Amino acid sequence: MKFESTSSKLLDDAVEEFAKLPGIGRKTALRLALFQLQRESEEVNMFCKSIFDLKDKIKKCKICHNICETEICEICSNSSRDETLICVVESIKDIMSIERTQQFNGLYHVLGGVISPMDGIGPSDLNIKELMGRIEDNNIKEIIFALSPTMEGDTTNFYLYKKLAKYDVDITSIARGISIGDELEYTDEVTLGKSIMLRTPFDDERL
Amino acid sequence: MKFESTSSKLLDDAVEEFAKLPGIGRKTALRLALFQLQRESEEVNMFCKSIFDLKDKIKKCKICHNICETEICEICSNSSRDETLICVVESIKDIMSIERTQQFNGLYHVLGGVISPMDGIGPSDLNIKELMGRIEDNNIKEIIFALSPTMEGDTTNFYLYKKLAKYDVDITSIARGISIGDELEYTDEVTLGKSIMLRTPFDDERL
Repeated sequence: MKFESTSSKLLDDAVEEFAKLPGIGRKTALRLALFQLQRESEEVNMFCKSIFDLKDKIKKCKICHNICETEICEICSNSSRDETLICVVESIKDIMSIERTQQFNGLYHVLGGVISPMDGIGPSDLNIKELMGRIEDNNIKEIIFALSPTMEGDTTNFYLYKKLAKYDVDITSIARGISIGDELEYTDEVTLGKSIMLRTPFDDERL
Repeated sequence: MKFESTSSKLLDDAVEEFAKLPGIGRKTALRLALFQLQRESEEVNMFCKSIFDLKDKIKKCKICHNICETEICEICSNSSRDETLICVVESIKDIMSIERTQQFNGLYHVLGGVISPMDGIGPSDLNIKELMGRIEDNNIKEIIFALSPTMEGDTTNFYLYKKLAKYDVDITSIARGISIGDELEYTDEVTLGKSIMLRTPFDDERL
């Protein structure tokens, strides 16, 4: 549906641009555009500048492809982290999620996506060669797969597993099971089934 | 609550700016900033430019304070509209709403707000003098108040009514009553009470 246009092309253009953002519909886009219109010019300039700078100045870490403002990201250049451990994630957002848990002290490797033939994303579009390079050039002991438990994530896990089999590294995957706080009654069958198959020795210290 | 910062100041700044928009929380702000990061530079430039241009180039109509790209807005410069009728609204958003109904063929006057002592908005902050000027300089027959049925809207209506009493114009207000499609059972008491007080002669042609 083409949204009825406002009386101004400039406003239409701004609404159009806001509506391209994920999760922003036409009504919200109009609200955001009108909000910009009634703000002080200085505030709008700061808004535009922050986004422009973000795109213009931010770099990808040469090692793990995390975002950074220098050549090497804060995590890769932090000597207190365990350099023998690499956690493979889909995107930088996942790094943020895992960092928030404060349960991981190794390094990361951002694939930049998962294998998804439907979206035209093949293995060559991902940073897989770079991962293999890191394993070859460094003393890596363990690679942890931390991709989403979707079909695409599993396909990518499987592909990576085959590719990395030739190296002398442990390959592990983050645990899948019932989320903490979930009730069995409402857990979907596949997750519940997997959680039985992948049961772990009972350890009261982990509770 | 200060949101935990990401590893990049540039990203933090962009998240901060997105989070200043109405209805955008920290999580959404992060999602929008990361979305900008993975877009093509050209797309991000277009986004920034559209907002910058919106703020930089858009003008207020010298007559009614609607937005426009010239001196006089499309509605005021449209000779097929009834120039004896002025509908007083709070903001340009209300003009869009009324225009969408296609039930009004007069002109508008944007007050730029409503009287709200709590927010420090007094009569002098609104375009009231300009409205009086229009009545004095033109052959206006009717002024329609179309402010929101809130306490602030009613206060503003009352103030305007007193100010405009000295002119030879009809002063009307948009009808208040039960919304089309609403059920009596679920209508609040104040609205239902008003709709009885303000009952209109039954006219089967208006149904």
